[in-house]
Amino acid sequence: MIVVMSRQVPEDNIEAVLDRLKKAGFQIHLSRGVERTIIGAIGDKTRMGDLALEAMPGVESVVPILQPYKLASRAFKEQDTVVKVGDLAIGGQHIHVMAGPCAVESREQLLEAAALVKAAGATLLRGGAFKPRTSPYSFQGLEEKGLQYLAEAREKTGLKIVTEVMDAGTLPMVAEYADILQIGTRNMQNFFLLREVARVDKPVLLKRGASATVEEWLMAAEYIMAGGNYNVILCERGIRTFENFTRNTLDLSAVPVVKHLSHLPVIVDPSHAIGKWRFVPPMAVAAVAAGADGLLIEVHPNPSEALCDGPQSLTPENFQTLMKDVRRVAEAMGRSL
Amino acid sequence: MIVVMSRQVPEDNIEAVLDRLKKAGFQIHLSRGVERTIIGAIGDKTRMGDLALEAMPGVESVVPILQPYKLASRAFKEQDTVVKVGDLAIGGQHIHVMAGPCAVESREQLLEAAALVKAAGATLLRGGAFKPRTSPYSFQGLEEKGLQYLAEAREKTGLKIVTEVMDAGTLPMVAEYADILQIGTRNMQNFFLLREVARVDKPVLLKRGASATVEEWLMAAEYIMAGGNYNVILCERGIRTFENFTRNTLDLSAVPVVKHLSHLPVIVDPSHAIGKWRFVPPMAVAAVAAGADGLLIEVHPNPSEALCDGPQSLTPENFQTLMKDVRRVAEAMGRSL
Amino acid sequence: MIVVMSRQVPEDNIEAVLDRLKKAGFQIHLSRGVERTIIGAIGDKTRMGDLALEAMPGVESVVPILQPYKLASRAFKEQDTVVKVGDLAIGGQHIHVMAGPCAVESREQLLEAAALVKAAGATLLRGGAFKPRTSPYSFQGLEEKGLQYLAEAREKTGLKIVTEVMDAGTLPMVAEYADILQIGTRNMQNFFLLREVARVDKPVLLKRGASATVEEWLMAAEYIMAGGNYNVILCERGIRTFENFTRNTLDLSAVPVVKHLSHLPVIVDPSHAIGKWRFVPPMAVAAVAAGADGLLIEVHPNPSEALCDGPQSLTPENFQTLMKDVRRVAEAMGRSL
Amino acid sequence: MIVVMSRQVPEDNIEAVLDRLKKAGFQIHLSRGVERTIIGAIGDKTRMGDLALEAMPGVESVVPILQPYKLASRAFKEQDTVVKVGDLAIGGQHIHVMAGPCAVESREQLLEAAALVKAAGATLLRGGAFKPRTSPYSFQGLEEKGLQYLAEAREKTGLKIVTEVMDAGTLPMVAEYADILQIGTRNMQNFFLLREVARVDKPVLLKRGASATVEEWLMAAEYIMAGGNYNVILCERGIRTFENFTRNTLDLSAVPVVKHLSHLPVIVDPSHAIGKWRFVPPMAVAAVAAGADGLLIEVHPNPSEALCDGPQSLTPENFQTLMKDVRRVAEAMGRSL
Repeated sequence: MIVVMSRQVPEDNIEAVLDRLKKAGFQIHLSRGVERTIIGAIGDKTRMGDLALEAMPGVESVVPILQPYKLASRAFKEQDTVVKVGDLAIGGQHIHVMAGPCAVESREQLLEAAALVKAAGATLLRGGAFKPRTSPYSFQGLEEKGLQYLAEAREKTGLKIVTEVMDAGTLPMVAEYADILQIGTRNMQNFFLLREVARVDKPVLLKRGASATVEEWLMAAEYIMAGGNYNVILCERGIRTFENFTRNTLDLSAVPVVKHLSHLPVIVDPSHAIGKWRFVPPMAVAAVAAGADGLLIEVHPNPSEALCDGPQSLTPENFQTLMKDVRRVAEAMGRSL
Repeated sequence: MIVVMSRQVPEDNIEAVLDRLKKAGFQIHLSRGVERTIIGAIGDKTRMGDLALEAMPGVESVVPILQPYKLASRAFKEQDTVVKVGDLAIGGQHIHVMAGPCAVESREQLLEAAALVKAAGATLLRGGAFKPRTSPYSFQGLEEKGLQYLAEAREKTGLKIVTEVMDAGTLPMVAEYADILQIGTRNMQNFFLLREVARVDKPVLLKRGASATVEEWLMAAEYIMAGGNYNVILCERGIRTFENFTRNTLDLSAVPVVKHLSHLPVIVDPSHAIGKWRFVPPMAVAAVAAGADGLLIEVHPNPSEALCDGPQSLTPENFQTLMKDVRRVAEAMGRSL
Repeated sequence: MIVVMSRQVPEDNIEAVLDRLKKAGFQIHLSRGVERTIIGAIGDKTRMGDLALEAMPGVESVVPILQPYKLASRAFKEQDTVVKVGDLAIGGQHIHVMAGPCAVESREQLLEAAALVKAAGATLLRGGAFKPRTSPYSFQGLEEKGLQYLAEAREKTGLKIVTEVMDAGTLPMVAEYADILQIGTRNMQNFFLLREVARVDKPVLLKRGASATVEEWLMAAEYIMAGGNYNVILCERGIRTFENFTRNTLDLSAVPVVKHLSHLPVIVDPSHAIGKWRFVPPMAVAAVAAGADGLLIEVHPNPSEALCDGPQSLTPENFQTLMKDVRRVAEAMGRSL
Repeated sequence: MIVVMSRQVPEDNIEAVLDRLKKAGFQIHLSRGVERTIIGAIGDKTRMGDLALEAMPGVESVVPILQPYKLASRAFKEQDTVVKVGDLAIGGQHIHVMAGPCAVESREQLLEAAALVKAAGATLLRGGAFKPRTSPYSFQGLEEKGLQYLAEAREKTGLKIVTEVMDAGTLPMVAEYADILQIGTRNMQNFFLLREVARVDKPVLLKRGASATVEEWLMAAEYIMAGGNYNVILCERGIRTFENFTRNTLDLSAVPVVKHLSHLPVIVDPSHAIGKWRFVPPMAVAAVAAGADGLLIEVHPNPSEALCDGPQSLTPENFQTLMKDVRRVAEAMGRSL
């Protein structure tokens, strides 16, 4: 990290900073320039946050040089992490599509959805039993009943199950049914929940917060990894910007950026990012071209009857077409679907 | 709400929309224009979210006309809500300052902070016993020990206590000590937690999410109110923008906007918004000028030794100066401190 | 448009609004609900901006229903516009790559760049003779000398020339040399300049402003088209968001969105959006997968010697690799390069 | 600046960077750490932009330490700049209010507006003769006729004139009439225009671009100052964010931030930032509390008849009330109106 001192700062301010850095075990490089004194400090980056150097007299700014995460970084692990979900390998040569309805609404709806996404080539089934809804008056999910339908669909189709966990209290119940535990965008910095899923022996799909930088997202992954669970799959799902024709702005550049900074697999959820079904297929294809390891797609047997997120759900026909396009582009990129 | 149909849409698409709206009890106004057919629908706004009209064939867009919240709206209650915290009235003529350290670090630190903010005119003491930290390697709070120190400080100074609750599991413990339960910015849409605090008989200080619109913030308040707890205090604390010289961008216009749309009291936290102590005092004063009902200010006996957010904490001296400026502006605005 | 009146508004406020709408030739649909009176108005959308209805007493809000642009809209023209640049057709089945250095720096640099991008399959040469630079102390371009080198490169390679025009005063000079006039992101709402390029008989490449919505971007195109120049090519180049690991956030969803709303061709500039060469190739490929009609790519014979935007420029080798990947994905999407 | 080299970088990459820095006259400080080699470079900050270090092999990132502007910085000039406009001093103890209609619409409208803002205590008259409008179909201004009316209003009331210049071509005409040349938000990075106003002997009011950081805004001021015109007044007018209840988000923290970084005076335009007249008065008062040197306020004799920006214009009565509130808060802050 670099500590920039203010102009014409008294010598004892500089000494105090040097002193604190040395006590914390940092190696020091001091540069006295004409305009400023600048202090370089090299040491344990995970301790920097607690030094409070910016609050010391005479300190103008503190510039971090290295990323604050460690276990999630490419520097810590050169090779790509491949997360195993039963016999599926996420983060390898094969692209996995996780598809299904926003919410589990009924046994019939879910089994129908599972059959159709399986037929089109998906390998995982998504569906929410606990739904975070903006309005308290909206459908909030079938809870354990929904989890049971998901398990039944898995049994019938062989699809693995991805479903959201919203709270530490219901985590044991969700973990009993799910193959992958999804942390939703609104909970990316629910640190209580992150610490709890770290203790569960299931892969975690960590959605990017709608206003989280890539660095904060990787810090959230670091929470899970620091707690002992290394099976983290990252999921880009759009960030909040001024553009409001789409629900959020899908940040596809996050895919190669995360692959550069980290060894973790990255998938993309174009459905929530865009919010309008019409634009989901081109963005799904683009995500694969950008290097994504998988897709999370909302599909509903009858979107206009959906209790949740109908406007962004694909019909069975549109999903089949999407899968064909994804397959062609995956192959052009040297991958398979 | 207004439903805009696509150009050249078949008649049965229009009929289907009319049918669904009528079944949901909406009153219909149909406009057939040259370019488009437009359907106006008047009815229970809390049901709109579940209609999934945008997923119906031939629907181009759905434009909501009324706000989706009800209990939190000015239309529901004309007069300002005044939240009572013991003998304090938040939302009335008097401006309340809630001050103290970011985190409770030790008994000595907290009692010293409490004494000094009390002496300068604060009426509530803030301090975190559970801390949401971006890094898993940072200090995470003293937990129940911290709550006990807060209770002791209350006993010694008479200051009321505001402290954050991060999780439904620890809510009963926090509620035992706190006078006001704070929901942090990262939990504004933790709907599980919102539903739980709705059941507790304590006022809730609801921070705005860093990427939440005013409408979403009021919908989060609606969750708490719909669950039976009407004592909600809103707290603006900065939104995420492209500007990164300050930590976030303090949206002071949210103060008069919320007062127009809602009857709930609004306070402002300039410390977290700005992230640099130097700019906190002018923004505190500006918040009062904009009509805020109170302030949440980080003060530390010795900011450069703080375990959390030292760079944005005021020294005792700077806090005293701030309080004098706030008092003068409050009086110029016809209020008291 | 929909005019929402405030609650309990006096009758003469409603009458005044109806009166103004009727005088402006709008057809009226009045809905008197329990909570609100709502007025639907159908008519010439290009006149709505001047009605100032929101300033009238009793008006709470005005909600536009139709897009404010006309000539640029898909409703105005169903088929895709194909812009002819000599014998090149932009917006058709073939994807065009416009490549070259950020700035024309010397005759040698430009001719070398032209030869290499031509060899790799580009059909147009980009290069700035007038450079908008954030700092007044940075290289500002070779001006007319630079334009002459571009013309010489065109003669030698057959590549068409795309170059930026920054000001109405220098437009005649730039138009003399350029095949396509580029309007830069900072000038997207330089309405003086838009009106001037509308009068020139050359295609215009209109970059999206870094904080422009898709609607504002199409309104800028409307300026050029309303002035008589229908040959507008839109170029997505990243929008400003809170994420700052990349220079801007490339909004690839703008590609299918614009193609839905408008008939104009859309190309993508990943170089300026990302700002780091390493991430340009995957985003170029993703842009083609998303449906872009072309790419604008910065290539420099020796990026580390570039006077402008070296960090985002590709080396000749990286550009050749990119072209191969783009070709494969273009073919997978049923297009050619 | 700090140059961070990649992990395990070959020695000649480091040498090449050192070599380039030395040739450019920078003083070098080399830190070889366990993970990285880090190079500190101290020298002429205005030359950094052209070094293209990030494009050199082995360079991971370049972190600037000092601000890239010089003449606009507080380091260059300790004392506040006071801009003289005839006998008015902007940036001193007195707060100046610049008020008037968005656009000059007619002689009668302007003279009426001038008389009323003068009576309420404004010292400058604002009004646009050239109007940047989002739609090509909207009223674009009276041009020279409008400037003549402004001059007549000045003669009749003694108010100084602030009016926008949109283009280098019309600058001589505007400069003949104006007391202060306004650069609009869309032209903040129209570098051609900045260079031209730098040559005119009139103060320049430089509005912040809606997506400009404070640093970019000060760089735009630097353009004008580097060209020889030191009389720059900065004007905060809202930045683009995801919040869309208000037109833009007024960033009042920019006021103390700019006063810390620069010596230039700063005023605030709440009318354009908010876009709704109802919220303009509290934000005007808050701006003064935050330390602004002046205000730019839209006032119209009859807002609902305005040809431009009626919804954000104050009525004469509301403006009078605002002025009384502003005066009281200004006095509480030790300033006068």
